[in-house]
Amino acid sequence: MELDKIKAVDTLSLVDKVEHELMQYFKENNYKPGDPIAKELDLCDALGVSRTVVREALLRLRTLGFIDSKKHKGMTFKEPDIINNFERIMDPTLLGQKTLKSLFELRLILEMGMADFLFEYKTQEDLDELEEIVRLEEETSYDKTAFELNKEIAFHGKLYKISKNTTLQRFHGLLLPVFEYLYQQEEFTKNSTYEYTAGQFVSHRMLLNNLKVGTPETFRGAMRRHLEPHFDRAFFKKKRT
Amino acid sequence: MELDKIKAVDTLSLVDKVEHELMQYFKENNYKPGDPIAKELDLCDALGVSRTVVREALLRLRTLGFIDSKKHKGMTFKEPDIINNFERIMDPTLLGQKTLKSLFELRLILEMGMADFLFEYKTQEDLDELEEIVRLEEETSYDKTAFELNKEIAFHGKLYKISKNTTLQRFHGLLLPVFEYLYQQEEFTKNSTYEYTAGQFVSHRMLLNNLKVGTPETFRGAMRRHLEPHFDRAFFKKKRT
Repeated sequence: MELDKIKAVDTLSLVDKVEHELMQYFKENNYKPGDPIAKELDLCDALGVSRTVVREALLRLRTLGFIDSKKHKGMTFKEPDIINNFERIMDPTLLGQKTLKSLFELRLILEMGMADFLFEYKTQEDLDELEEIVRLEEETSYDKTAFELNKEIAFHGKLYKISKNTTLQRFHGLLLPVFEYLYQQEEFTKNSTYEYTAGQFVSHRMLLNNLKVGTPETFRGAMRRHLEPHFDRAFFKKKRT
Repeated sequence: MELDKIKAVDTLSLVDKVEHELMQYFKENNYKPGDPIAKELDLCDALGVSRTVVREALLRLRTLGFIDSKKHKGMTFKEPDIINNFERIMDPTLLGQKTLKSLFELRLILEMGMADFLFEYKTQEDLDELEEIVRLEEETSYDKTAFELNKEIAFHGKLYKISKNTTLQRFHGLLLPVFEYLYQQEEFTKNSTYEYTAGQFVSHRMLLNNLKVGTPETFRGAMRRHLEPHFDRAFFKKKRT
């Protein structure tokens, strides 16, 4: 028996197959949001499987966001919300340390990478709003290098908004609980201060000024410096006291 | 009647409530991957709802990746794979134009933002591999500014790998079909060349040299220049001929 010619046995469950078949059908027939989907019983007939199997496959597609179903109105096709699925599982208490670390790093990458979008889309209104955030922060801060989560969120959250990228904004929104959790978990409290290698600390005020009169290049440099404690943390170069 | 004191009616379905209740239970009891989950019938009793409702809620959690269930072995809890959910819905033919644009932008942001990780984790082996990718590319390219998707993927895909961030790598993997689709859809073919504003085009060869002897700062500058056609496209500044 030549085993290189033997065909792998199909191990997909019936539900997997029906899920796959339905997705193929939607794609090939160019389904658009709002298009009605055939009734369960008709699908059973067409697919030649039991109602239980069809029902379970439809439930999966509903959970993933491809199907909308309202009582007495039948099912319709919809464009899945790419962030919504993420949102439902993004619970820091249920994610492992490795995943949490990779999400933390992702935040650093996003904030370093978004500079061009900030300079492209910033408006006077945005700058005024950041000005107000920084002003409030300065009024209530004694130690400007101390880390305070709520101030971080106000300032950096506004930057995500300026990027005009809704996927990015919502992604940031659902990463927030992850950051809060990480900060609570470790030594990132407002009582810990970070020792900068050399030279000046870059504050939110300085980032704002850079956004006003700088370029994406100068802003990236300033942001890198601002995020230095977080980068050192990601790379296990701890300098916290 | 004082309407500000009236309580909003609970409009969640029974299945929603059971899903929520189960998630709360897992969190409060600090469930870890592999922990067994009670049987359907026991859950029905404890929650006071029908088997159909429990079954549907469990199916949802299974689809989201919180529950593993093998035949004759019962259900166990698992850490959801944050990318797997994304993967299942990331089909460019089923996503709207706005979502596709935001994903395209996200790629630019990630590649601009990952420089520090590349310099932190690069090894001689990585550089050798990139060297080989660039060598092959140069051997088969006539016009170095022409865009060829497969060469892009080889080079940039390797950069994602060097970042050592598995979430980022897998995210890039599932964005690939989106990029392919966008390039096919629009004028980004290998026959179209991009007119650079002024000065030198930054090739993969130059990015590689930068990664060898430069810094994250110089690399970001080079990458920005390399990605210029894509940024111009994102900002609707078309300079293609």
